[in-house]
Amino acid sequence: MTDESNTYILLFSCPDRPGIVAGVANFLFEQGCNILEAQQFDDTESGRFFMRVSFERVSGEETLESLSEKFLPLAEKFGLDWRLRSRARKRKVMLLVSRFDHCLADLIYRWRIGEIPMDITAIAANYPRETYAHLDLDGIPFHHLPITKETKMEQEAQLWELFQKTGSEIAVLARYMQVLSDGLSAKLSGRCINIHHSFLPGFKGARPYHQAHMRGVKLIGATAHYVTSDLDEGPIIEQDVERITHQDSAEDLVRKGRDIERRVLARALAWHLDDRVLINGRKTVVFRD
Amino acid sequence: MTDESNTYILLFSCPDRPGIVAGVANFLFEQGCNILEAQQFDDTESGRFFMRVSFERVSGEETLESLSEKFLPLAEKFGLDWRLRSRARKRKVMLLVSRFDHCLADLIYRWRIGEIPMDITAIAANYPRETYAHLDLDGIPFHHLPITKETKMEQEAQLWELFQKTGSEIAVLARYMQVLSDGLSAKLSGRCINIHHSFLPGFKGARPYHQAHMRGVKLIGATAHYVTSDLDEGPIIEQDVERITHQDSAEDLVRKGRDIERRVLARALAWHLDDRVLINGRKTVVFRD
Amino acid sequence: MTDESNTYILLFSCPDRPGIVAGVANFLFEQGCNILEAQQFDDTESGRFFMRVSFERVSGEETLESLSEKFLPLAEKFGLDWRLRSRARKRKVMLLVSRFDHCLADLIYRWRIGEIPMDITAIAANYPRETYAHLDLDGIPFHHLPITKETKMEQEAQLWELFQKTGSEIAVLARYMQVLSDGLSAKLSGRCINIHHSFLPGFKGARPYHQAHMRGVKLIGATAHYVTSDLDEGPIIEQDVERITHQDSAEDLVRKGRDIERRVLARALAWHLDDRVLINGRKTVVFRD
Amino acid sequence: MTDESNTYILLFSCPDRPGIVAGVANFLFEQGCNILEAQQFDDTESGRFFMRVSFERVSGEETLESLSEKFLPLAEKFGLDWRLRSRARKRKVMLLVSRFDHCLADLIYRWRIGEIPMDITAIAANYPRETYAHLDLDGIPFHHLPITKETKMEQEAQLWELFQKTGSEIAVLARYMQVLSDGLSAKLSGRCINIHHSFLPGFKGARPYHQAHMRGVKLIGATAHYVTSDLDEGPIIEQDVERITHQDSAEDLVRKGRDIERRVLARALAWHLDDRVLINGRKTVVFRD
Repeated sequence: MTDESNTYILLFSCPDRPGIVAGVANFLFEQGCNILEAQQFDDTESGRFFMRVSFERVSGEETLESLSEKFLPLAEKFGLDWRLRSRARKRKVMLLVSRFDHCLADLIYRWRIGEIPMDITAIAANYPRETYAHLDLDGIPFHHLPITKETKMEQEAQLWELFQKTGSEIAVLARYMQVLSDGLSAKLSGRCINIHHSFLPGFKGARPYHQAHMRGVKLIGATAHYVTSDLDEGPIIEQDVERITHQDSAEDLVRKGRDIERRVLARALAWHLDDRVLINGRKTVVFRD
Repeated sequence: MTDESNTYILLFSCPDRPGIVAGVANFLFEQGCNILEAQQFDDTESGRFFMRVSFERVSGEETLESLSEKFLPLAEKFGLDWRLRSRARKRKVMLLVSRFDHCLADLIYRWRIGEIPMDITAIAANYPRETYAHLDLDGIPFHHLPITKETKMEQEAQLWELFQKTGSEIAVLARYMQVLSDGLSAKLSGRCINIHHSFLPGFKGARPYHQAHMRGVKLIGATAHYVTSDLDEGPIIEQDVERITHQDSAEDLVRKGRDIERRVLARALAWHLDDRVLINGRKTVVFRD
Repeated sequence: MTDESNTYILLFSCPDRPGIVAGVANFLFEQGCNILEAQQFDDTESGRFFMRVSFERVSGEETLESLSEKFLPLAEKFGLDWRLRSRARKRKVMLLVSRFDHCLADLIYRWRIGEIPMDITAIAANYPRETYAHLDLDGIPFHHLPITKETKMEQEAQLWELFQKTGSEIAVLARYMQVLSDGLSAKLSGRCINIHHSFLPGFKGARPYHQAHMRGVKLIGATAHYVTSDLDEGPIIEQDVERITHQDSAEDLVRKGRDIERRVLARALAWHLDDRVLINGRKTVVFRD
Repeated sequence: MTDESNTYILLFSCPDRPGIVAGVANFLFEQGCNILEAQQFDDTESGRFFMRVSFERVSGEETLESLSEKFLPLAEKFGLDWRLRSRARKRKVMLLVSRFDHCLADLIYRWRIGEIPMDITAIAANYPRETYAHLDLDGIPFHHLPITKETKMEQEAQLWELFQKTGSEIAVLARYMQVLSDGLSAKLSGRCINIHHSFLPGFKGARPYHQAHMRGVKLIGATAHYVTSDLDEGPIIEQDVERITHQDSAEDLVRKGRDIERRVLARALAWHLDDRVLINGRKTVVFRD
């Protein structure tokens, strides 16, 4: 077992050029750090280089702050877009939910047993708290933020205020069932994960299981992606599918789909929180666990 | 092991109404036949009933012809759209192919080892025979039918003539790479299976792996469907997928996709030939093996 | 939507012989019942025939009791081992659990949202109730039945008494982590489902994920099976797997395995409760939904 | 597209200690090489470190030989077990086959279309050449080496001589169906891949599909592994599975299994040839493509 308070994750992308890996590896070696895990990807199409390094400080007195400061010159030299995080520091997550709570229930369960380490700053729901009476929301601030066509703008303002006030770093649309406005999508750019209940790009928009049933596909799926202003077109983080048959009604697809949705969203969020996901234009680089 | 010459498959659909199963089961019992396998599906949405019965004649002297004749009154009473086939009779299949021959090679291999029983009436290729020099086409009539924009109508006329002249019952577009005209599609309605190299309805049309690469999906797939005049919209018979990552180039998808394509097409064809597939509007009923 | 109070499921097995399907179909037709769904399987190896029929009474006044009585002569004629159930009647289920509660939490969630219809008669746990403090056990009788090597016999007597007293029809070992004695296994024969955290027959017995990690397999799995006195050798109902890599520690397998375990157990239980599973010697016949 | 003649793959393992990545990255940078892809794995259980680096020489005049020579001091300093290969150099492969040729046919097809780059040095078969009449073996030396209990020792001597004489680097048991003697297994240690037609460790030894059918499993699989003297216990490279049902006879499993076997073996061989596989005790490290 590694000591989490002494373990760090460095995640970055930059224009590809010789010497990056050597530069980073030398830096860490000189600071008394040992690389535990490293993944990299060189996108020859975009000419961009992506890397994740998990390392442990084995000697010296460096802190996150001092390491970051010392890393700056190298980061500037190679033009790095980077973040460095101590594994001991949990990310702040805001969960948004609507009537169907299977994804919410699943994320809370994984959090309670320590599978997904995070600080849940808030649950924002457009249904009242009693809708989730059978879930143990103890210790999680709950906010009922109902929405109608008329109040959408105000409600989104409240969401955004809540996100900022709570210091949230990521918003998770756990079957939130509302399309965010372009404005809010832009504000949350790269910081908002949605679960769409189809295998995108098939069946965008509303009622995807009913669309899938009408089309007669033989597998259904779910897709976790970063939200952009372009509906269901954001960078995909994770997808999965299950086999269905002609016997399955649209309701059967809804039922079978719940299992896919919750595991796809849980994986995507866990990877995001563990600094395993980088946005690469319309796509993602995912260093899977 | 059952005696194939004595084994029959009855496949039908009809408007749903009480008494169909009893009627069919009684008929077979009275003719000295034993049901080996039966599957049925009641589509409550369309009100249509679908059934496949595999049975063995255990006594009596009935032939396919006499059984068919005796079955007629029942078939008329319930308004059955039906076919009855002796398992010993192989279906006649015409294979169409273009430059990439992995599906063709696979189907021929499965046929040679007896996995897919069929009579291959013809291979129609828009590339010359030497393109397939490494395949053993011995005993299979090969027809080079090149196609250009200008000659498309004539070439399709040749295809259709070949299909008819050879008594073919099903045409298989084994990566044929040409869009059939509305006219030929209509003529081959329900008798032409295509393999599309994407998980439909995602990535219709040309270069689907490149589309998939651009979109950054995390799984790629292939789809076998009946051809209709509406491109890549025909009833889906089978689909499958495989996981990919950000590391995969479009060329990697092409490579990995070959494995999916050939197994999806082989399954779809085998099921069709074994009378396991019924068209149900825009969808199919597939009694999988 | 069908009216559940008028819908029945007949499940049976018997020695194979001509006329069974006709007999059953005629009987239902004569009683004013319409077949909604039927599946059958003829095991040519054992000579045994298996069938599930779901039907709706569309006319007449028959009840479950009168239908059952009228069915008796036919059942006797063909030597049927059968059960007939109204869909409206929920099965009584007793859940057994130990420290890890992911399967329990999952089953309770599916029950609360109506996905798995059942009456939970009791939770029997060898850990105290506070272990499950974050689960909403409201309305479910909870029994803390601790177990040690010395008290195993007494504890099993309590379990059996609880099973009987509550009228339970099926016991579910939801990661119960105790090997039932031969005596209790025999009493619960065909009425007890276990989830084993490996892809059986690989890695029987204790700590299967650690065994899998040591062996270096590339996929891990879970298996739901009926309990017999022969450890991890009972008839398998359902299995599933997920891909792992050399990077995964034994703890990673435990984590990734939880998702497989809960969905495999949920499927197996749902199919059992929906009369979709028949025991066929050491194997099962599963008419999947 | 990278120039293969200028692209190299370095694969190594060594005791874990700080500075390895920096050392290798610096070395490559100093030699005018650019890292294209790198993967590493730190096995905290064994304390061993594994790495694969693919790189391109962008300047300078180094050859494989001069690079290797210059790399020696670093390799010695860190105690590396290493190999360095030019991508342009194809590995020499000997294929062993028995009566069932689906894996052989598949490997040859993939080789002919350039999917698996290799030099096939020999096919050694215990059936005569006419068994494979429908395969295009043109240009591949074919050796009929029949085997009986009595001649096993002599036949294996011939195999070993052939392996050596042809300069083969890897032997592939493409459903060879013979258990190699301990002696030959030892000689081919780490240089012989077998495909076993079960999901190991389930169903070792003979007739695994029949064993699987008897046990009533719900998924069947295949396993590619390095051969050791301990039957079906060698380090696993790749596994895959497919769903089956109670309807499948043992013969159906054989048929469905062929598809799994050929794709599992092809992947394992391709990864081995692309220097993506390292043996780690009883396990493997596989840097998948």
